[in-house]
Amino acid sequence: MVAVLKQGASKEQIENLIAWLENRGFRVHISTGEYQTILGLIGDTSKIDTELLESLEMVESVKRITEPFKSANRKFHPNDTVVDIGGVKIGGSNFQIIAGPCSVESPEQILAIAEKVSAAGAALLRGGAFKPRTSPYDFQGMGPDGIELLLEMKKKTGMPIVTEIMNTNHLPLFENIDVIQVGARNMQNFELLKELGMTRKPILLKRGLANTMKELLMSAEYIMAGGNSNIILCERGIRTFETYTRNTLDISAVPMLRELTHLPVIVDPSHAVGIARFVEPMSLSAVAAGADGLMIEVHNDPANALCDGAQSLTPEQFAVMAEKVRRVREALK
Amino acid sequence: MVAVLKQGASKEQIENLIAWLENRGFRVHISTGEYQTILGLIGDTSKIDTELLESLEMVESVKRITEPFKSANRKFHPNDTVVDIGGVKIGGSNFQIIAGPCSVESPEQILAIAEKVSAAGAALLRGGAFKPRTSPYDFQGMGPDGIELLLEMKKKTGMPIVTEIMNTNHLPLFENIDVIQVGARNMQNFELLKELGMTRKPILLKRGLANTMKELLMSAEYIMAGGNSNIILCERGIRTFETYTRNTLDISAVPMLRELTHLPVIVDPSHAVGIARFVEPMSLSAVAAGADGLMIEVHNDPANALCDGAQSLTPEQFAVMAEKVRRVREALK
Amino acid sequence: MVAVLKQGASKEQIENLIAWLENRGFRVHISTGEYQTILGLIGDTSKIDTELLESLEMVESVKRITEPFKSANRKFHPNDTVVDIGGVKIGGSNFQIIAGPCSVESPEQILAIAEKVSAAGAALLRGGAFKPRTSPYDFQGMGPDGIELLLEMKKKTGMPIVTEIMNTNHLPLFENIDVIQVGARNMQNFELLKELGMTRKPILLKRGLANTMKELLMSAEYIMAGGNSNIILCERGIRTFETYTRNTLDISAVPMLRELTHLPVIVDPSHAVGIARFVEPMSLSAVAAGADGLMIEVHNDPANALCDGAQSLTPEQFAVMAEKVRRVREALK
Amino acid sequence: MVAVLKQGASKEQIENLIAWLENRGFRVHISTGEYQTILGLIGDTSKIDTELLESLEMVESVKRITEPFKSANRKFHPNDTVVDIGGVKIGGSNFQIIAGPCSVESPEQILAIAEKVSAAGAALLRGGAFKPRTSPYDFQGMGPDGIELLLEMKKKTGMPIVTEIMNTNHLPLFENIDVIQVGARNMQNFELLKELGMTRKPILLKRGLANTMKELLMSAEYIMAGGNSNIILCERGIRTFETYTRNTLDISAVPMLRELTHLPVIVDPSHAVGIARFVEPMSLSAVAAGADGLMIEVHNDPANALCDGAQSLTPEQFAVMAEKVRRVREALK
Repeated sequence: MVAVLKQGASKEQIENLIAWLENRGFRVHISTGEYQTILGLIGDTSKIDTELLESLEMVESVKRITEPFKSANRKFHPNDTVVDIGGVKIGGSNFQIIAGPCSVESPEQILAIAEKVSAAGAALLRGGAFKPRTSPYDFQGMGPDGIELLLEMKKKTGMPIVTEIMNTNHLPLFENIDVIQVGARNMQNFELLKELGMTRKPILLKRGLANTMKELLMSAEYIMAGGNSNIILCERGIRTFETYTRNTLDISAVPMLRELTHLPVIVDPSHAVGIARFVEPMSLSAVAAGADGLMIEVHNDPANALCDGAQSLTPEQFAVMAEKVRRVREALK
Repeated sequence: MVAVLKQGASKEQIENLIAWLENRGFRVHISTGEYQTILGLIGDTSKIDTELLESLEMVESVKRITEPFKSANRKFHPNDTVVDIGGVKIGGSNFQIIAGPCSVESPEQILAIAEKVSAAGAALLRGGAFKPRTSPYDFQGMGPDGIELLLEMKKKTGMPIVTEIMNTNHLPLFENIDVIQVGARNMQNFELLKELGMTRKPILLKRGLANTMKELLMSAEYIMAGGNSNIILCERGIRTFETYTRNTLDISAVPMLRELTHLPVIVDPSHAVGIARFVEPMSLSAVAAGADGLMIEVHNDPANALCDGAQSLTPEQFAVMAEKVRRVREALK
Repeated sequence: MVAVLKQGASKEQIENLIAWLENRGFRVHISTGEYQTILGLIGDTSKIDTELLESLEMVESVKRITEPFKSANRKFHPNDTVVDIGGVKIGGSNFQIIAGPCSVESPEQILAIAEKVSAAGAALLRGGAFKPRTSPYDFQGMGPDGIELLLEMKKKTGMPIVTEIMNTNHLPLFENIDVIQVGARNMQNFELLKELGMTRKPILLKRGLANTMKELLMSAEYIMAGGNSNIILCERGIRTFETYTRNTLDISAVPMLRELTHLPVIVDPSHAVGIARFVEPMSLSAVAAGADGLMIEVHNDPANALCDGAQSLTPEQFAVMAEKVRRVREALK
Repeated sequence: MVAVLKQGASKEQIENLIAWLENRGFRVHISTGEYQTILGLIGDTSKIDTELLESLEMVESVKRITEPFKSANRKFHPNDTVVDIGGVKIGGSNFQIIAGPCSVESPEQILAIAEKVSAAGAALLRGGAFKPRTSPYDFQGMGPDGIELLLEMKKKTGMPIVTEIMNTNHLPLFENIDVIQVGARNMQNFELLKELGMTRKPILLKRGLANTMKELLMSAEYIMAGGNSNIILCERGIRTFETYTRNTLDISAVPMLRELTHLPVIVDPSHAVGIARFVEPMSLSAVAAGADGLMIEVHNDPANALCDGAQSLTPEQFAVMAEKVRRVREALK
């Protein structure tokens, strides 16, 4: 960490500051320039509050040199984390596709989709029971009944289940769910992250719509601080000025996150673009960029889906896409 | 609501669509252009899911003409909502200043600040007990002890208390708190909004860092859908590409929100700019733009504040600012 | 185009407005709703100024239904445009790689790079003579000498040349240049676009850092309005809140632009991410997304390049990348 | 400037790098931390290319500590620059209002507006002859005839004239224009900036729609590098995700720019919000924030203006606003 001092800082102020910092366990290097004095802080700076330091009178600005995340940082944990979901592995050299409908609607719907996506190569089944909707007047999901239905489907198909949590109160309902998803709008719901850190469940953590990779990793750090490092990061599109697509898939986040962290990184192209016919090219892009997996919305009857039909593939389209994904992965071996 | 059909849509497809819409209670007007057919939907379109409609095969795009918020909409409720907080009124022609420290630290701290800001004209006391921090390693607030301390201060000073909630589980702790604040990162924590809608407490709802005014109003709508219309909206800066200020205060949100909704609109310049010496000019701007109130961070010893010291005014600076606010309000009468 | 009228608009005002619109050659459809009256305008609405219409007293808002671009619009020109650059074709099913250094530095440098990228499969040679730099103190390019050097290299290697123009005054210098590049910061330099529309040169038009696809297409429209439709669009990353990468490559722009327009669409991953080691995964992504070509910075000695060395591949890295590009294209045939 | 070295950097590499930097005239301080070695560079770092340094193999990242702008920097020029426009002064304690129509349309129009805004307190007359429009099909301004008309009006009214340049070729036409405006879309048209730096004309430099304050100051630096320091900076709204207003007025840019630079800072609320009824509150905000001036669009018949009618005040509305501006300035004395 580097602290730039104000031009007028007196010798005494500087000495007091250095003493204060040394008391907190840092070694301090001083560079005295023509216009500016710079202090270099050596020690575990993830423990210091940047804003506190910046608020001191003689300090002009503070710049972090090392990242504020430790547990999620590949520098300190060079090997890939492999998340094991009842035998289905993701991360390292293990690539997986999660597929299923936006919302759970009925047993017939889920079963029909599950069988087809499984046959086409998906290893995990997704489906929403609690749905975060911008409007209170939109369909809010089946709730606890939806969770029960998903658990039935798990028994019938043997596929591990991925579904979203929105409230710490609901945690008991998720006891037999295999992967708990934290949605984009809850990425900085720190109370939720803390409670998930207390579990040992695999967590699928989605990047917020206007959040940076550093913030995503800090949210992962919240979960890891509780002792749970079974985390799958998910790039799902960020908000930009573009309006022709719902969001903008940040494809460069894939190689960048894989370099910054040891956690697996998957891509959700369905929410990123919001348009079914672009899900295939975006999936292929994600694979070409090195993603550890994909999460794809599939619906047997998109036109009558209760939510997000516009971005759902039919099982047939999904099968075509999955085959192309396989071919691109083969080509890049 | 207007639905634009695809160029190739057949007559039969169009007739089926119109029948489907009429079944849902809409009247439908058809405009047949050279390149495009447009359907105008008349009826309560806040009840229809835009994405569902857009997912239909023959539909190219859907555009809302009326706003999707009803309860918060000034069109249907032309009179200003006045929120009454134990006799302190905000909204209509009632202007109020909320002041206090970022975090509750000790009884001495709070009391010292409360007395001074009250003398300078603040009517409500703020202080954080639960703090949303980007890093799990930063100070997380005093928690329940902080709430207790605030309630003691309420007794001593008579000032109503504003403090932030982060978890629906904590709601019982807030029973005697006067105004419950929903922070920017929880603006779309829909589960929290729903539970607050069940109370009749005044809610201070902050705009999210990358959220639009429409989304803010939809979040207010979530609370109002539960029957609670005691809502104060708060503009607190949005995320932009600018890095010299922490966030960018969206000053035009003040007159725009006051036109769109009947709810009172206040401004938090402290979080918006994040730099103490700019809090005064931003406060004056907010007042000049027509805000119904201000929320200001004040700390007796900003350099040693446990959080956000960089943006806190001293009580003396606050008093100077409050006097200028009074003069600008006087000038614009 | 749809005009939404204000609630209080009188019958007479509406009749006057309709007469005014009909005088301008539009047919007008009226939909009278509970809260709102909507006018549908049928006719060539690309000729009407939306803001003029919106400024009328009884009009609340105006929404375009059809896109404001005509010449660039695939709806009216369904077949792919193929740009022919001295026999090198791009667009349709023709895929090309443009490669070369950020800045022209010396004949030895260019020649060394040109021979190697050509051998590895690049068909066009890029090199900057006029460089747009944020700081007046940074290297501004070799200027006219750089252009001369590029033309020499064209003779020696036979490769068509792509280079950037920054000033309409320089146009005579570009007479023998094969493709004139318009940089991101000049995408809305309308005077430059107009003059390039008067030529029949192939133009490589880069998307601005904070511009939408619609704005990119409107800028293409400026060139096409002059009669020049030899335009190659280039996605080169947009500005977002992310700071780990220089810009964010908008990969979904590739399939979206290819649907919206008949013009070829290429990707410049070097400028998008700004980090050499991510150029390969981003190139493969672009190809997987369906791009018509790539533009790649290659330098024989990136550490000593006079500009943008941080994002340049060595010729050896380029050759590896080009081979993988070939394999992905093969896999997706 | 601080250079952070990669973890694996060898002693020899570090010594070579230090020698290389010392050759370029820098003194170098070394801080060796547990995880990272940091070099502090002392000297005129505005002359070094950050990206060149970052491209070196052993360098992980480079952070500027001092701003890259020198001539515009208040640190080196603490006194306010006062721009003198034929006797009308702006900057220091001199506040001015520039008013007039978006586009010059006819002598009658300009004269009618000029007389009224002058009577209400505007000291400078604005009017566009060359108009940057997103669409080639929109009105592009009267061109040279418009400039002539403005010069006639200058003679008749005695008001100095502000008008926009879009092409360096047009510079001779601007010989008798008092203030040359550089529009937002040309803020990084570096060729134009360089040529304006060669003149001694007052330049009104507008901030780009998605540009930071640092970039604005670097563009001012381009003009100042040519020897022209008669520059007025103008905040005119930036692009954000908000769509209810055309752009978002960055009100905190006013005090921040006034601290960073000695150049005068004015605000254009008309373009920022794009809605006439919000121009008054935004003007008052700008004044409360400490702006050195305002630029306001005024049209005698907004509904029939050839451009931007939606954001123009009538002369009567302007007079009301100007009176309130006077009162707020009085209150804050």
